[in-house]
Amino acid sequence: MVAAGTKQLDRREVEQLVREVLQQKLRGVTPPPARERHAAMGVTPGGPPNPLVVNVSARHMHVTPEHLEILFGKGSTLTKMKDLYQEGEFASEQLVTLVGPRQRIIPNVRILGPVRNYTQVELSYTDGIYLGIDLPLRISGNHDNTPGITIMGPKGALTLDRGVIRAERHVHMSNDDMAYYGVKDGDQMKLKIDGPCGVVFERVRVRHHPKVVLEVHIDTDEGNACDLESATHMELFK
Amino acid sequence: MVAAGTKQLDRREVEQLVREVLQQKLRGVTPPPARERHAAMGVTPGGPPNPLVVNVSARHMHVTPEHLEILFGKGSTLTKMKDLYQEGEFASEQLVTLVGPRQRIIPNVRILGPVRNYTQVELSYTDGIYLGIDLPLRISGNHDNTPGITIMGPKGALTLDRGVIRAERHVHMSNDDMAYYGVKDGDQMKLKIDGPCGVVFERVRVRHHPKVVLEVHIDTDEGNACDLESATHMELFK
Repeated sequence: MVAAGTKQLDRREVEQLVREVLQQKLRGVTPPPARERHAAMGVTPGGPPNPLVVNVSARHMHVTPEHLEILFGKGSTLTKMKDLYQEGEFASEQLVTLVGPRQRIIPNVRILGPVRNYTQVELSYTDGIYLGIDLPLRISGNHDNTPGITIMGPKGALTLDRGVIRAERHVHMSNDDMAYYGVKDGDQMKLKIDGPCGVVFERVRVRHHPKVVLEVHIDTDEGNACDLESATHMELFK
Repeated sequence: MVAAGTKQLDRREVEQLVREVLQQKLRGVTPPPARERHAAMGVTPGGPPNPLVVNVSARHMHVTPEHLEILFGKGSTLTKMKDLYQEGEFASEQLVTLVGPRQRIIPNVRILGPVRNYTQVELSYTDGIYLGIDLPLRISGNHDNTPGITIMGPKGALTLDRGVIRAERHVHMSNDDMAYYGVKDGDQMKLKIDGPCGVVFERVRVRHHPKVVLEVHIDTDEGNACDLESATHMELFK
């Protein structure tokens, strides 16, 4: 599945990337476009068992222990920058650079921990167009017919031959949540966001896990389309 | 309203921008992320007077004759690259570079013609976050409390003190279209896009002009959120 090692990049490409990173240092560039937002509506008596929380997933990566070592060196582990909403999940301090087929890069892509048994890069369509990758819409972990990408870390690079996706919008649900909404794993729901840029997202896939808390994940294109930050009301329904 | 002239940029900034442009030339960079899509549903007997056409507006600029001369030199006019869907409107061959407050640039932003009696830059929220501009949601031409930006052309630069917006999603309608849908200028409608990334856009503003043809405009964030290219059915309703 994976061809590892810096030999994937020729001298010209490396020179170009070094120049790019230097430029960014000189310019004091901060992380790339990504609006991480969080919105939640409270729980009312007789209402749902958990508050409706909607989060925007900025572009990110999941990684196997083996790939982490290629990128960050032998014996590397993920170190926590901050906890995410789901217990045990965290944004790590580890950042990588993506190199796409149009000879463009996206730097400062964060690895989300803990390590997984697969390596996966989740991008928005805006990112895909920028990099020149025709992103397939997939539920996390489904890598059938997905494209690859080159990833650079401080200690090495690797080229995946698959695992780059746009994550299908989804809602994490426990047993209680599924019972309340009358849905089952794999069903599709609707998410209504009221506000100046009001949108109803259809096809929000139910993803069941006994230990999760209710949380909808949309990507940055979706978060920007509805301007989640300015939402006045949110509703999840069949 | 406008401070014109290259003196807005100091030597360091100019050097940096030259480096950036040179880098792009070396890399053979093509225009920035923008998915221009076009989707239309046909007219059926007894149905609407015009087919429902939905277009994605990539980031672009409108310009006054005076500002065009600052950017492209004395006596400059817009030259047509291709016609747009509305009669008389066109994508020009003229491209500018936007310089934002985060010291980042977006090159190759196209001017849409013909020239206007105001200068306006229309961006997506993704662009706004990248540049560091908090974009207000506005109908074209409403520049109350809007931010400015620095714009570079081949012959000069100008700094607007307002006119940068996210365009409110809207539908251009003639008298016939308004009569069919039972709406009037300024009303809000809904646009349903069916497909793998199905979305209902609420608050689609009706913009009346006697000589337009029915056309919905959404921006790249919205076009990518619903993956307009993969739409299987579209519907416009109150």
